[in-house]
Amino acid sequence: MTHRILIIGASGYTGAELIRLIATHPTFKIASLVANSKAGKSMSEVFPHLRQLNLPDLTHLDEVNFEYIDLCFCALPHRTSQEVISQLPSSLKIIDLSADFRLRDPQTYENWYGNPHIARQTQKHAIYGLTEFYREQISTAQLVAGTGCNAAIGQYMLRPLLSEDVIDADEIILDMKCAVSGAGRSLKENLLHAELSEGYNAYAVGGTHRHLGEFDQEFSAIAGKSVRIQFTPHLIPANRGILATGYVRGNPKEVHAALGEAYENEIFLSILPFGEIPGTHHVRGSNFCHIGVTGDRIEGRSIVIGVMDNLTKGSSGQAIQNANLMLGEKETSGLMATPIFP
Amino acid sequence: MTHRILIIGASGYTGAELIRLIATHPTFKIASLVANSKAGKSMSEVFPHLRQLNLPDLTHLDEVNFEYIDLCFCALPHRTSQEVISQLPSSLKIIDLSADFRLRDPQTYENWYGNPHIARQTQKHAIYGLTEFYREQISTAQLVAGTGCNAAIGQYMLRPLLSEDVIDADEIILDMKCAVSGAGRSLKENLLHAELSEGYNAYAVGGTHRHLGEFDQEFSAIAGKSVRIQFTPHLIPANRGILATGYVRGNPKEVHAALGEAYENEIFLSILPFGEIPGTHHVRGSNFCHIGVTGDRIEGRSIVIGVMDNLTKGSSGQAIQNANLMLGEKETSGLMATPIFP
Amino acid sequence: MTHRILIIGASGYTGAELIRLIATHPTFKIASLVANSKAGKSMSEVFPHLRQLNLPDLTHLDEVNFEYIDLCFCALPHRTSQEVISQLPSSLKIIDLSADFRLRDPQTYENWYGNPHIARQTQKHAIYGLTEFYREQISTAQLVAGTGCNAAIGQYMLRPLLSEDVIDADEIILDMKCAVSGAGRSLKENLLHAELSEGYNAYAVGGTHRHLGEFDQEFSAIAGKSVRIQFTPHLIPANRGILATGYVRGNPKEVHAALGEAYENEIFLSILPFGEIPGTHHVRGSNFCHIGVTGDRIEGRSIVIGVMDNLTKGSSGQAIQNANLMLGEKETSGLMATPIFP
Amino acid sequence: MTHRILIIGASGYTGAELIRLIATHPTFKIASLVANSKAGKSMSEVFPHLRQLNLPDLTHLDEVNFEYIDLCFCALPHRTSQEVISQLPSSLKIIDLSADFRLRDPQTYENWYGNPHIARQTQKHAIYGLTEFYREQISTAQLVAGTGCNAAIGQYMLRPLLSEDVIDADEIILDMKCAVSGAGRSLKENLLHAELSEGYNAYAVGGTHRHLGEFDQEFSAIAGKSVRIQFTPHLIPANRGILATGYVRGNPKEVHAALGEAYENEIFLSILPFGEIPGTHHVRGSNFCHIGVTGDRIEGRSIVIGVMDNLTKGSSGQAIQNANLMLGEKETSGLMATPIFP
Repeated sequence: MTHRILIIGASGYTGAELIRLIATHPTFKIASLVANSKAGKSMSEVFPHLRQLNLPDLTHLDEVNFEYIDLCFCALPHRTSQEVISQLPSSLKIIDLSADFRLRDPQTYENWYGNPHIARQTQKHAIYGLTEFYREQISTAQLVAGTGCNAAIGQYMLRPLLSEDVIDADEIILDMKCAVSGAGRSLKENLLHAELSEGYNAYAVGGTHRHLGEFDQEFSAIAGKSVRIQFTPHLIPANRGILATGYVRGNPKEVHAALGEAYENEIFLSILPFGEIPGTHHVRGSNFCHIGVTGDRIEGRSIVIGVMDNLTKGSSGQAIQNANLMLGEKETSGLMATPIFP
Repeated sequence: MTHRILIIGASGYTGAELIRLIATHPTFKIASLVANSKAGKSMSEVFPHLRQLNLPDLTHLDEVNFEYIDLCFCALPHRTSQEVISQLPSSLKIIDLSADFRLRDPQTYENWYGNPHIARQTQKHAIYGLTEFYREQISTAQLVAGTGCNAAIGQYMLRPLLSEDVIDADEIILDMKCAVSGAGRSLKENLLHAELSEGYNAYAVGGTHRHLGEFDQEFSAIAGKSVRIQFTPHLIPANRGILATGYVRGNPKEVHAALGEAYENEIFLSILPFGEIPGTHHVRGSNFCHIGVTGDRIEGRSIVIGVMDNLTKGSSGQAIQNANLMLGEKETSGLMATPIFP
Repeated sequence: MTHRILIIGASGYTGAELIRLIATHPTFKIASLVANSKAGKSMSEVFPHLRQLNLPDLTHLDEVNFEYIDLCFCALPHRTSQEVISQLPSSLKIIDLSADFRLRDPQTYENWYGNPHIARQTQKHAIYGLTEFYREQISTAQLVAGTGCNAAIGQYMLRPLLSEDVIDADEIILDMKCAVSGAGRSLKENLLHAELSEGYNAYAVGGTHRHLGEFDQEFSAIAGKSVRIQFTPHLIPANRGILATGYVRGNPKEVHAALGEAYENEIFLSILPFGEIPGTHHVRGSNFCHIGVTGDRIEGRSIVIGVMDNLTKGSSGQAIQNANLMLGEKETSGLMATPIFP
Repeated sequence: MTHRILIIGASGYTGAELIRLIATHPTFKIASLVANSKAGKSMSEVFPHLRQLNLPDLTHLDEVNFEYIDLCFCALPHRTSQEVISQLPSSLKIIDLSADFRLRDPQTYENWYGNPHIARQTQKHAIYGLTEFYREQISTAQLVAGTGCNAAIGQYMLRPLLSEDVIDADEIILDMKCAVSGAGRSLKENLLHAELSEGYNAYAVGGTHRHLGEFDQEFSAIAGKSVRIQFTPHLIPANRGILATGYVRGNPKEVHAALGEAYENEIFLSILPFGEIPGTHHVRGSNFCHIGVTGDRIEGRSIVIGVMDNLTKGSSGQAIQNANLMLGEKETSGLMATPIFP
């Protein structure tokens, strides 16, 4: 059975990544591609690497016939996304890749994003899209909120440690290193090749990055108390990849065991043998996530390091994984491609 | 029906690329991986990006049971390759990725590579592996010689122009720009990140690059006279990709038409609309080749620009394409993955 | 004696490079920095790498007191530049880094740049700024037009070959490879790190690049007849550098000798020993230009390869060199810094 | 007065960087360049970017006439360095860039580096080369031990905080991001462009990096008790630069003030305005170090971020700075070049 897919926001990087993944999916078929600002253009103009696919031209949202759509991916910027989604047919299955439906409390949303939430009713039904931890709810969801890419890697590294209580929830530091595609296809000076290549820097230092909203929400729920971690992202001169170095307090072997057990049956989450160190080049272009654990020379301290491709497992691959669940397909369909190296 | 595959030389980049492509192939199954110098190691040690595949450990060639092998890819350095292949069972189907069986005349081989050919009998039966031009012979071949990556892109750009006689065969210049993976996983100072990143240079200037042997052999055969082109390769700070800028004498529209007609039914070879310019980032990680044609301001001169991924269409993807033909599979099996961008 | 310097357009890359070079210049002192759109900002906001210099804040042009300026660098975009310069005091020594005063014939300017020239009187007095060939005129000039970066390297490679008549003027091809800073600090999608890194492509193919106007003007003047070369630029994923591969008809040894003799006493122009190949990483951040010559396997054809840093010798370094001449300083003042490698 | 300089180990990156810096030094003159393995070669063969300098050819150590040497930089690998230095004339002023004389306790050296120290007498007189903190002793020293590049940036960030007692010495985490030139010009697979570009990873995780020996020695001395920090380095795909993110416990404003006061008169150490974030691209190729301080959202926690160029302020620039002190020159001589950007 073929599932007809709509992508709204098809001219950005997560949109292109969705198309790339769907191209090899056995049962998903792209029915319509929306990008209001580039409506009328062919995808090969906007993304020449998609030239060989037989894709519909970009179109306006109001030209979409929703009768022929089984599932919609919404890859718009936050704030725009809630406006658009609140106008879509209520029977439509939707996966939103923006930040708009990740936070359950609208006030928390407003605190982090600066604008009041205008689709509160819709948001009530949104399911948080971290597949491996919300599988059942996602299967029957109407609206799934894809997680932030930083939020995804951090949670994969830390959730089992908090739920198994093997680390001190008050002493967690995540030092994140992110490739530039995480910032999207946006014309900002600091994203120019000449500004970024050969240099790197921290940003959103001091606990101001918006993905902290997700960490707070999820970690506090697991721990049954307020958990607030330290989190510092850095921009690295590479196109894809996200690496998080977690500094935690807890016995390294217990930390390693907790992760190993939690993900024993997870195809996309690999816990490396104790002491092995992952690299972003080993998951590039794939839906796989590698996590390594090492003990520090200071007793009782562990270092947990996780890597994923921010555009795949960190956003569009996760979205496909969730779509598979929502549409009754095998969870791994279209997602088993091997990482590309070198 | 499953085809059991052996890869000899599995610890290099073309070996890894073969494994990556075979991982999504519907009927190929890796039976054995040989790398004498790293025998006993697991593939995840040698290439951590292959960790999630269920692969056999690396082994010695003399441990291979050839009864259970349907086809062998040989990804060894030239010279070693002819030694190894001349010892393999004569009934084995083989695709060699080295330079050892590309040149039909052993003396020409010796002239370019500096050593006498020691497997002359074997070489007599080798078929040149430029799929689109040797399809029938490849289908029934016992031994196929994969082309050089530079040789492949150059021939895709120029063969139809010579066979249709729309350009002057004595006035061809190919200015090539190659990414670093073309040099293999070899420990050379000029391949270090610190030496190469942010810099670029020509090499093998003046008609000394060995792939010229292939150009001479093939172009002369087409033209029915000796054709010797100018060819200058440059090393570019990127991991994958090859771009050739061809300067030819001939009417641009005729040049464009000749290519368009020649490749009308070729899935992997796209001739862009007249005047459009291809980029290596649009074919990365894929088996697709894009070629663009533009007229110069000087009348009667055309510029032909071709791009491909040197590791895929330029070597391992081509090898899979040929293996499909040799094993009676659909030519495109395992090769339709969309390029990865950004 | 100290020379007081004004830079108009100080917030772009060539502006920043002027400041970097002037910082170590023994007699130049920055008096005023103009950038209308960023007036009021400190230079450390706009270019944090200049933080340790004691620089004036950015200001509006109309706040400049020209009594206290000895020389002005104008680093504005073309078209804007002619508007601004035509309003500056006529007694001011000016070096323009834009394209506005490079072409002597206003009609030729309009043909290449698309807009009529509005400062024709001023332009009449402009001297073309290719230092080594216009030294005397520059010394006494009021207005010097800095050359295009592509135009500079191409002329260094070819002028002596034309004036010594050792090559065929009708058979010249320049295949250019340019780093991204040549495109300036402009917010264009194709200049984003995620779009450019790991990929490369040609642009302005077919004789449409505007620097051809300079080649036509200069080469025709030397040859005493119309000379029109073929010229194809490519964008390379690096920040600084320009490499041109020249395909010419002429005896390689004579070509090498002609260049060697022409530049025997030139400090910044190095002709490498015959057969040696230059790389952009060997001139990065410096005012040096390396040129190598090799013979092709086809008799009577030579390959000339030149490299320079597009921001230094290709624009701001050249401008300082010219300023030294105009102000009676040693030509090499402030320009002898060694390239930075790795 | 001219000082005649010898460099032993001139074929590596720190050797080349010394030469680059000395080229613009007003009173230093290179008298002899030693590289046993490449003796007889010209520097332009080994480092073509130094082509325009008038340098002596590489020579064997035993050919050096020490009568004509005023100061020697030793840029050899550790272990080799102590062997060589113990044989040099005892009257020679020496700056060692290796790890061999950094640790005062020979047993500690053996613990970290694995081999017994064979030049214990020499080592007793070695002065630790962190210029700003050992100025007086360096001025009169016979042998100065250049610090590790990681050790330098970490100490600049933390020493004043420990000596002013504004942070908790038991709760320090340094997350380091290092460019690849820090690994030297060594032929290792993980340093190849194809392996490193576009990817990044941690290494020496868990407190095993040798520069921890320096941190332990210095921080414990300042605090008057054993201080052991957590330290995790990461390899970043860039050629130059080192960025350390320090997680400390202490009032952010006090932390900022302590650093500001400590470096008030230091030309090379800039404390940014509170809340500003430094980047490696702002110090590239220079001897400057930028340090920023931000408060975390968790009260009582501060984030200190420091950047420098590992080859300049992190090794060869520091060495020149120390040489200036030892030879009675102005400390900043030859070191005031502006960073290169982009």
